[in-house]
Amino acid sequence: MSNRMWGGRFATGPDAIMEEINASIDFDRKLWRQDIRGSLAHAAMLAETGILTRDDVATITAGLRQVESEIESGTFTFSRALEDVHMNVESNLKDRIGLAAGRLHTARSRNDQVATDMRLWVRDTLDELDGQMADLQRALAEKAESHAGSVMPGFTHLQSAQPVTFGHHLLAYVEMLGRDRSRVRDARARLNECPLGAAALAGTSFPIDRHMTAKALGFDRPTANSLDSVSDRDFVLETLSTASICAMHLSRLAEEIVLWATPQFGFVRLSDAFSTGSSIMPQKRNPDAAELVRGKAGRVFGALQAMLTLMKGLPLSYSKDMQEDKEGTFDALQTLSLCLAAMTGMVRDMQPDLKAMKKAAGAGYATATDLADWLVRVLKMPFRDAHHVTGRLVALASEKKVGLEKLSLAEMQGVEPQITEAVFAVLGVDQSVKSRVSYGGTAPANVRKQARRWLKQLAKG
Amino acid sequence: MSNRMWGGRFATGPDAIMEEINASIDFDRKLWRQDIRGSLAHAAMLAETGILTRDDVATITAGLRQVESEIESGTFTFSRALEDVHMNVESNLKDRIGLAAGRLHTARSRNDQVATDMRLWVRDTLDELDGQMADLQRALAEKAESHAGSVMPGFTHLQSAQPVTFGHHLLAYVEMLGRDRSRVRDARARLNECPLGAAALAGTSFPIDRHMTAKALGFDRPTANSLDSVSDRDFVLETLSTASICAMHLSRLAEEIVLWATPQFGFVRLSDAFSTGSSIMPQKRNPDAAELVRGKAGRVFGALQAMLTLMKGLPLSYSKDMQEDKEGTFDALQTLSLCLAAMTGMVRDMQPDLKAMKKAAGAGYATATDLADWLVRVLKMPFRDAHHVTGRLVALASEKKVGLEKLSLAEMQGVEPQITEAVFAVLGVDQSVKSRVSYGGTAPANVRKQARRWLKQLAKG
Amino acid sequence: MSNRMWGGRFATGPDAIMEEINASIDFDRKLWRQDIRGSLAHAAMLAETGILTRDDVATITAGLRQVESEIESGTFTFSRALEDVHMNVESNLKDRIGLAAGRLHTARSRNDQVATDMRLWVRDTLDELDGQMADLQRALAEKAESHAGSVMPGFTHLQSAQPVTFGHHLLAYVEMLGRDRSRVRDARARLNECPLGAAALAGTSFPIDRHMTAKALGFDRPTANSLDSVSDRDFVLETLSTASICAMHLSRLAEEIVLWATPQFGFVRLSDAFSTGSSIMPQKRNPDAAELVRGKAGRVFGALQAMLTLMKGLPLSYSKDMQEDKEGTFDALQTLSLCLAAMTGMVRDMQPDLKAMKKAAGAGYATATDLADWLVRVLKMPFRDAHHVTGRLVALASEKKVGLEKLSLAEMQGVEPQITEAVFAVLGVDQSVKSRVSYGGTAPANVRKQARRWLKQLAKG
Amino acid sequence: MSNRMWGGRFATGPDAIMEEINASIDFDRKLWRQDIRGSLAHAAMLAETGILTRDDVATITAGLRQVESEIESGTFTFSRALEDVHMNVESNLKDRIGLAAGRLHTARSRNDQVATDMRLWVRDTLDELDGQMADLQRALAEKAESHAGSVMPGFTHLQSAQPVTFGHHLLAYVEMLGRDRSRVRDARARLNECPLGAAALAGTSFPIDRHMTAKALGFDRPTANSLDSVSDRDFVLETLSTASICAMHLSRLAEEIVLWATPQFGFVRLSDAFSTGSSIMPQKRNPDAAELVRGKAGRVFGALQAMLTLMKGLPLSYSKDMQEDKEGTFDALQTLSLCLAAMTGMVRDMQPDLKAMKKAAGAGYATATDLADWLVRVLKMPFRDAHHVTGRLVALASEKKVGLEKLSLAEMQGVEPQITEAVFAVLGVDQSVKSRVSYGGTAPANVRKQARRWLKQLAKG
Repeated sequence: MSNRMWGGRFATGPDAIMEEINASIDFDRKLWRQDIRGSLAHAAMLAETGILTRDDVATITAGLRQVESEIESGTFTFSRALEDVHMNVESNLKDRIGLAAGRLHTARSRNDQVATDMRLWVRDTLDELDGQMADLQRALAEKAESHAGSVMPGFTHLQSAQPVTFGHHLLAYVEMLGRDRSRVRDARARLNECPLGAAALAGTSFPIDRHMTAKALGFDRPTANSLDSVSDRDFVLETLSTASICAMHLSRLAEEIVLWATPQFGFVRLSDAFSTGSSIMPQKRNPDAAELVRGKAGRVFGALQAMLTLMKGLPLSYSKDMQEDKEGTFDALQTLSLCLAAMTGMVRDMQPDLKAMKKAAGAGYATATDLADWLVRVLKMPFRDAHHVTGRLVALASEKKVGLEKLSLAEMQGVEPQITEAVFAVLGVDQSVKSRVSYGGTAPANVRKQARRWLKQLAKG
Repeated sequence: MSNRMWGGRFATGPDAIMEEINASIDFDRKLWRQDIRGSLAHAAMLAETGILTRDDVATITAGLRQVESEIESGTFTFSRALEDVHMNVESNLKDRIGLAAGRLHTARSRNDQVATDMRLWVRDTLDELDGQMADLQRALAEKAESHAGSVMPGFTHLQSAQPVTFGHHLLAYVEMLGRDRSRVRDARARLNECPLGAAALAGTSFPIDRHMTAKALGFDRPTANSLDSVSDRDFVLETLSTASICAMHLSRLAEEIVLWATPQFGFVRLSDAFSTGSSIMPQKRNPDAAELVRGKAGRVFGALQAMLTLMKGLPLSYSKDMQEDKEGTFDALQTLSLCLAAMTGMVRDMQPDLKAMKKAAGAGYATATDLADWLVRVLKMPFRDAHHVTGRLVALASEKKVGLEKLSLAEMQGVEPQITEAVFAVLGVDQSVKSRVSYGGTAPANVRKQARRWLKQLAKG
Repeated sequence: MSNRMWGGRFATGPDAIMEEINASIDFDRKLWRQDIRGSLAHAAMLAETGILTRDDVATITAGLRQVESEIESGTFTFSRALEDVHMNVESNLKDRIGLAAGRLHTARSRNDQVATDMRLWVRDTLDELDGQMADLQRALAEKAESHAGSVMPGFTHLQSAQPVTFGHHLLAYVEMLGRDRSRVRDARARLNECPLGAAALAGTSFPIDRHMTAKALGFDRPTANSLDSVSDRDFVLETLSTASICAMHLSRLAEEIVLWATPQFGFVRLSDAFSTGSSIMPQKRNPDAAELVRGKAGRVFGALQAMLTLMKGLPLSYSKDMQEDKEGTFDALQTLSLCLAAMTGMVRDMQPDLKAMKKAAGAGYATATDLADWLVRVLKMPFRDAHHVTGRLVALASEKKVGLEKLSLAEMQGVEPQITEAVFAVLGVDQSVKSRVSYGGTAPANVRKQARRWLKQLAKG
Repeated sequence: MSNRMWGGRFATGPDAIMEEINASIDFDRKLWRQDIRGSLAHAAMLAETGILTRDDVATITAGLRQVESEIESGTFTFSRALEDVHMNVESNLKDRIGLAAGRLHTARSRNDQVATDMRLWVRDTLDELDGQMADLQRALAEKAESHAGSVMPGFTHLQSAQPVTFGHHLLAYVEMLGRDRSRVRDARARLNECPLGAAALAGTSFPIDRHMTAKALGFDRPTANSLDSVSDRDFVLETLSTASICAMHLSRLAEEIVLWATPQFGFVRLSDAFSTGSSIMPQKRNPDAAELVRGKAGRVFGALQAMLTLMKGLPLSYSKDMQEDKEGTFDALQTLSLCLAAMTGMVRDMQPDLKAMKKAAGAGYATATDLADWLVRVLKMPFRDAHHVTGRLVALASEKKVGLEKLSLAEMQGVEPQITEAVFAVLGVDQSVKSRVSYGGTAPANVRKQARRWLKQLAKG
């Protein structure tokens, strides 16, 4: 126990169960890169401000680089008795460079150190996720451009509502991901303040330069209140919220892929690469990846809820409860990353059955709105009346088990005498989508333009 | 059933239980102001684009103003048979102006209408919450300025760690609220796109001008994809996330008030206005409001979780599940508003017991870090060694049941011979807080400066 | 303030915001019936034990009956200044009977009183929900009996897997509801202990008889620890868990109804009574009630999460946070009740399209497992080999775009020479379901038997 | 890919990302013991029913025993390409015994297999948790017996309310754990049905004996509906609910330990074995384990929420989403196990400071209720009036900054002339707790009796 950093006053060591519940090295070792990066910046600042000698700092820096190499090479042995990543690194450093290692912890504490490590890790991860979201946007937008004019049913309540194009549908997800990325940007900007130098909770009497370490680590500025610096995990919560909303978006597309891949819908086919079989039913082609993406949303939501619960009612400043900020966050963000990759793969992989889509688009009286709009536009009926007339025509067609376009003009005039032959022009699905030229509407020209706008923007990076 | 807007094709009316589960008027009536505002903008645009005649639109506008007055005056009777706020307004309008009312729904649908109403409502509510957060910041910063130098114990693990000032502690919450407000701003900016004109899901063939309605309603631009426009509730989720994090912050301060108000801590006293008694124990002064603020955090988290669950796996575009976006959101945001108001009241009300705080600040060897830092600074010991020496001195003092400052120099030198008389200067709590001059540290001069910076910024609004 | 029950020591009244956050009468008035019931039992016991005179108790009892009648008749005015249901009832009683009213609160506190009221309310509600669950089971089991032999596709991964019967599918939900009811029974049994007499937290020095009040209120016994009695809300949590699992079950059936009602599946049709239309698309028949049942699951889960969060980390015994146990619970259980009623209505209402179901059952090579099993049974192939052979036959049929039963014997023998004409007998869907005679399997005879077993059990009540 | 069990029909292998998202072997290997146990029972039944030959089954059984030994010995290599534990075991078996291995999967599917494995694992884990809960009850009850008469303050709203005994307080947690264990028992009984033999979803045409396998695996009976058997994860949800409530209980005791260990309360001291120090503050004794137990509650709640979200809206029968039932459940139950162990250690470890507790018990006018009760009992005042009189006496004492017992009789009579010298007998804390003899009250004799009742019951096991 002599290498415990805080053991000076303790007569006996911890109970075994205490060690088990307390040690974080099994998961916080993930932060080793950030931890060393923070220590290098801290050491450089200690030299610059004259708190440590340049010699000591040169020794420390060289030593830290060696520790870094050793961990990178995979030969480093993390020890549970040393509790956490900070102590593992520092203890190894001490073995290498002796006394000077003990000077590195001047004017800092594990409280500000772990807050800094975690911010750096979350920031790095947000950047990676942003890249993955952009990849998925690109896959969607490319497919959308190809299918700007491919007609499919637009659903509300999962009932055919109006024809839309497949490209238009895919671009809805590009919009969602656009908002996700915008949230990532905001979260990143907000977290980009450096807690290092808050020390345990109160700041320090050493003449440190927090702006210098902040800058060295790529932060915009140091945090402004030392108590808040070590107590704050907003950046974790905001990241998990952002991840939850994105996971929810993916779950929606996943649900649609599951639906579209059923024989009943038959809108898309996933290749063997994204299908699995059954141990008992030889004919199955299961969209497992889509189901898993859908299911994993719950896992991300659970991590957010766990973290909110964790922080609720914690008095300032640091409490050990906050050590629980890591495992759930690591798991949730890795889960989201996996889901983004899988979804990008599926989007690129899936082949639409355009014929099946188009056929379905015309079923279910999907152009009834076009008919109602025609009555308004041409016959100048108030919309509500037009809606009623259309309703009666649909009922008539439904009774005869035919599409609206198969009603005779006479039959139509039986319901509304002013209807003319011209009405038939608006009852086809191609005509329907072409007519939806309002901004954001599904007209193929619109869709193509939007897809290209996105692809251009994505090309800029 | 003749006044049902969608009943044209239906032979029989809904089952009673269907009406009960389906009707939303009991809660979406809250959106009446936003609904009428949206209709006025829509009507003006229909006139401007020539889709309706100016006469019709003048009639509609006048009628809508009358409906607005009637609701405002409290004499309007909302009808459950008319399902929702949109139909209640439209039906009343029809009673007033007849046929023209039926033209208002041209080129829109309830799907884009409710999405617009809800965005407007959330936007208004975010603005109100932001104002309340600023009020609370002001109350905290004013108290912080007054108590920039009032010493209290700084805790980690709820154990005395180092002395801090009460002002510094309060400013930690000002920082949290600063981040909350920054999240509110970002959420507001992101939601500020207008879905009106997406119609049911596909856009419309009428030559509408979505930029015009967007501008009239204070939105930055129209939404870019009609399917997304009616399927998206990100703005609700992001608002609930933001509210959850803020509610979590309030729960922490609430927990602290509960603790501080115990006889054991005795750090603050709430006046009668914020205390309640007991029906059986006449001596009780219970900090009920703080407990309620703490408890209500769960309610806000629950609403967020409910909404995430709701949206998970929903296929595009609108599904009726999404009607469930309202009650939980209304309740959660109203809850947060109440908590902010109650907390502002408590912060202004609570009186610190400065003597008790200062006494506690000195207990528990809270200046041990100052001693360790002295050893590093003056004796040039490596921090880790200084930490061990201090640990032994604390153990010695603890054994003798005295404070560190009550050890004799001889006793100190028994542990570390190089210690000199000068060490006693760093063992007092006032000296301790004064020494923490690092940026963000608890030195009273720092705290005063930060409090004034905030008050100045808050004065700008 | 003179009518405040705890105001003896307070100089000034509460702040307005304090009253707003503190008063619970707006929601706990729901407990009036339980509150009076508890007071009647308490008063009777006070008389029996001689703590109050029989005259006083007779007066109190008569007075409480009058209060009860007044509330029942709807003429009672609840006052916010009186905070909660307990004080509203007691204050009204005092107006009626004077001094004796003040004796009723002997040997009890609002802490044990509200715990008793809430247990009684939850118990009553569990009983009602159990009845509703039984109704839904009955509706399902009756339909299952009628459709014990109606073939439909059985899905895994929403891909056709093997034919099952519609009755078998519906009975799966009867099983789920059976577990729900069993959980309700267990929760009810566990909550059925009476906290009355725990007083504020420590018990009382009055010679009360807790067994007597427990019995009078239908509880099995008094609670055994007074601190636990006023701090415990397990019964709320367990009820919300039980409700969440049931709501989840309903959401699954709701999802299936939404799917089955699509034109693509076309398995069921809901009548006009359970369909809604669109304000813009006249042809729509939306399964709104099913969508709402699906969506409302999130609301119930949110209430559970809110309550868990609320209770987390609360020190003993009563804290005001616990007042937040009511609104979410009331809302969640009422929501579940509404969902059960709506689902029962939909189940009774929905008409299966047997032809469509049967056709779909045969598509997608759903009898491939029957083929594989035949290879095992008749040709004695190891299952894994049979699975591979079947896979190749499915691939062949798929390439030829025909069903398995349309392959010629020669084609089959090209893959596996030992196959004989007899194989064709197992490739039909009717034969397939009939063959699944294992216990719990989908053979119509099994299904009929299970349906009857349930109906018989449900008839017993 | 040749060893993939379902690859017969697939032309190309899965994408790398597909393999990564799809493979479950990294976590479901935890089920190896249950998987082999299930296979042994299944094989024995296949022999008994004549579906396989006795020779084949003897070979299979011997092979499975070898696989079991190899895994037990730690030399087994799990392969990701083989996806899951079932295929890893079966593939290894095939390497050992050849062809016969392929017969083992007759009349079962991975769907019923994994459902069986998971039930067995959850059942085993529930049994272990129950044992741990009993250990904690024992630790609490033993301490409660020792401290049946040790007076401490009883709190409501964290304000001193009435004196109670430390033993009484600890027994409140024994009650909570008693309910937890009762929930465990009910959950165990409800899950104890065997899904094996449901096959993929529809049952099987092989003449299996499901009662036999159910019995062999210790289940009470086979499940009654094959679709439900493979779609049901109620047992996971109910277990996670039960775990969440228990974790909540532990979080409350943890919060109390954190409070009690502050210098301000000073009620208990944890030994070095359960305290940790600080890297910067040498004097700290942090109750880390208690904080971690408190924090980890959120993690268990999150797992429950994740699982509810996962199951919401899933159509029957098995969907791949359900593979997500494992990691969160494993983690949550292991977390609870760790928390129970840590809490048991802390309870045994912590030493109460009886003097501090008793002193605090008398502070804050904690016997005011005793005074009020005396007024009722002796002077026959209505309780409400007694409450007001007491309130005035408390105000008087508070003004004079003395305890109630330090008021002179004359001062008391100035408020209420009928008060006599006898009143002073009820104002001491020892007398107060002794007087609370009502069932469940805090009188030491009561507490001792309850502690012994529990210890006797726990001794029975």
